[in-house]
Amino acid sequence: MRVDNTPYRSIWADVAARQAFVIDQTLLPHRFVVRPLQSLTDAEEAIRAMRVRGAPLIGVTAAYGVALAMASDPSEAALEQAVNRLAATRPTAVNLSHALERMRTRLLALPAAGRIAGAWAEAERLAEEDLRLNRAIGEHGLVLLRVLHQRFGRSINVLTHCNAGWLATVDYGTALAPLYLAHDAGIPLQVWVCETRPRNQGLLTAWELQQHGVPHTVIVDNAAGHFIARGKIDIVLVGADRVTRRGDVCNKIGTYLRALAARHHGVPFYVAVPSPTIDWAVDDGMAHIPIEERDGAELRRMTGVDAAGATSTVSLLPETTPVANPGFDVTPAEFVSGLITERGVIAANEAELTALFPQSCAPAK
Amino acid sequence: MRVDNTPYRSIWADVAARQAFVIDQTLLPHRFVVRPLQSLTDAEEAIRAMRVRGAPLIGVTAAYGVALAMASDPSEAALEQAVNRLAATRPTAVNLSHALERMRTRLLALPAAGRIAGAWAEAERLAEEDLRLNRAIGEHGLVLLRVLHQRFGRSINVLTHCNAGWLATVDYGTALAPLYLAHDAGIPLQVWVCETRPRNQGLLTAWELQQHGVPHTVIVDNAAGHFIARGKIDIVLVGADRVTRRGDVCNKIGTYLRALAARHHGVPFYVAVPSPTIDWAVDDGMAHIPIEERDGAELRRMTGVDAAGATSTVSLLPETTPVANPGFDVTPAEFVSGLITERGVIAANEAELTALFPQSCAPAK
Repeated sequence: MRVDNTPYRSIWADVAARQAFVIDQTLLPHRFVVRPLQSLTDAEEAIRAMRVRGAPLIGVTAAYGVALAMASDPSEAALEQAVNRLAATRPTAVNLSHALERMRTRLLALPAAGRIAGAWAEAERLAEEDLRLNRAIGEHGLVLLRVLHQRFGRSINVLTHCNAGWLATVDYGTALAPLYLAHDAGIPLQVWVCETRPRNQGLLTAWELQQHGVPHTVIVDNAAGHFIARGKIDIVLVGADRVTRRGDVCNKIGTYLRALAARHHGVPFYVAVPSPTIDWAVDDGMAHIPIEERDGAELRRMTGVDAAGATSTVSLLPETTPVANPGFDVTPAEFVSGLITERGVIAANEAELTALFPQSCAPAK
Repeated sequence: MRVDNTPYRSIWADVAARQAFVIDQTLLPHRFVVRPLQSLTDAEEAIRAMRVRGAPLIGVTAAYGVALAMASDPSEAALEQAVNRLAATRPTAVNLSHALERMRTRLLALPAAGRIAGAWAEAERLAEEDLRLNRAIGEHGLVLLRVLHQRFGRSINVLTHCNAGWLATVDYGTALAPLYLAHDAGIPLQVWVCETRPRNQGLLTAWELQQHGVPHTVIVDNAAGHFIARGKIDIVLVGADRVTRRGDVCNKIGTYLRALAARHHGVPFYVAVPSPTIDWAVDDGMAHIPIEERDGAELRRMTGVDAAGATSTVSLLPETTPVANPGFDVTPAEFVSGLITERGVIAANEAELTALFPQSCAPAK
């Protein structure tokens, strides 16, 4: 996608220089800063500090992290250590373990001498694949927006939560890919963007939409029920950090409240999910997806810019106030109107998921 | 209630000096500052800027605002002007119009010479009445917490939204009054406090609970569905800005999302409502309660304290980003397990409400 009309991806590599580059998302929407990743430690830190975030981008960043580790030590021991360190950065997103397992399997099959080149090539392939998956999701999701537009003959109101845009992936995004393609196809949209406390990733979504010229309005998370109840929303469209074999959706904290409101008011609730986000080994998302408990500092402090335009952090509540900060919640499959995958739009159930991905769906553990 | 062990109310007057005093709630939880109100303009500004907030406290502050206006000009014209100016400060809370109508009726019946003393006396009466109503709500609500404690034999987990505590009233609070009385009666509680963006009144609730020694944990608004779905919440307890004749509840934006989650998971959802918060003239809350659209700056900027402890405001998103900021939402009566009034706990429907308040319930318009 474009930033001030210059094409960008959220991650890219200079393979010859053994470096990857990411956009530091902790500084957006205030400052656009590209950050080099030059070591395994850089990649780990970028994921953990959420300079990169979004399940697909976390996976690709981890793949480059393995390549960075191989560049300094291509031994089997270094490979295993890199995989373990990167796997520990974020427990909920399943793309991370998929990407790491793929890098591990591919590189173990190579002699140490071939692992450096092999690692960079595999990371590049993963990035290209992510881009293709998201583009396909965009094309399949576009038909949902087109039919709503044909039905209502007016601008379509989409509610989204968090950032499932190109910043969360290598390019295009998952939930936002259909919006970009619909906008480019002349379908008028109005996107209602939930702020998404505590990290306010909704502001990344607003920034992306503004860069692409898609009309949008930011609301606090609390306002989603009000707008859904008043008939202001035609469809809810979100991404996912992990989707189970039966279609339970683990996504950013607060997604479930939107699903409850959408169902009560008969508003379609769709989840954009590239296949690497599906965890075929888990059925019951509520029981078996680990929910990351994140640092309470995310609630206690807020970063923005001060009157002089400098980055500034303020403390919202005393350090002694107890807080809890689960990063994700689980929306049971029964609340999901459909899954938008790279192979098409299906119902959120095991039969449709396994029929669409017959090669991937090893039996559930 | 107590602040650092000194007894306080949220508003009080020095009648001889023709001044009222309030706690500036925009500075809490960081700084405890008492602010004098010396004119009608001061009272207007305090309500509009949310230095005082909470439906009951808005009503009482407006009454003192009329008294301040009378102190400088006790004419009928000045009275009408004061009532109109104060009525325009916040459109949703019905206590405001109740208090103003009462002041107006009482003072019009007096000769101009008697209006100054009459206004202060009536404002003082309103404040005392509010305190008595809240104390009675606390006693009736306490029995709900006691029976849950008897049933489960453990600490009772209460979820609350916004601040319906003593800061929102003259003293005790509405939704928090039962918690204070239960805590004092030895019933163990754990209160889950929703942050309540955009104004973060949940932090006022946490501050109140901390001052009183009630165990609590602050969560982001998005996390309410997660905790309710995981069985962590025994009862949801909130206040109201306006309750209709049939029991629809208008309260801080985000209340409805909690009601949806509570109902889906079979968690009791109670609303503490003193009778001045009931609007007998409205049946259908969704259709007929005006929802205040507040300044988008509440989303764009966040105030806290910087590393040096000074009050500091940061900008979260560009001034050009479109925002929408409805201050309240409506929870239909069907979602409300019960209303806790000063006369007892009843179901949220017209029959029970009118039976409990036969003198108040003139026919609906």
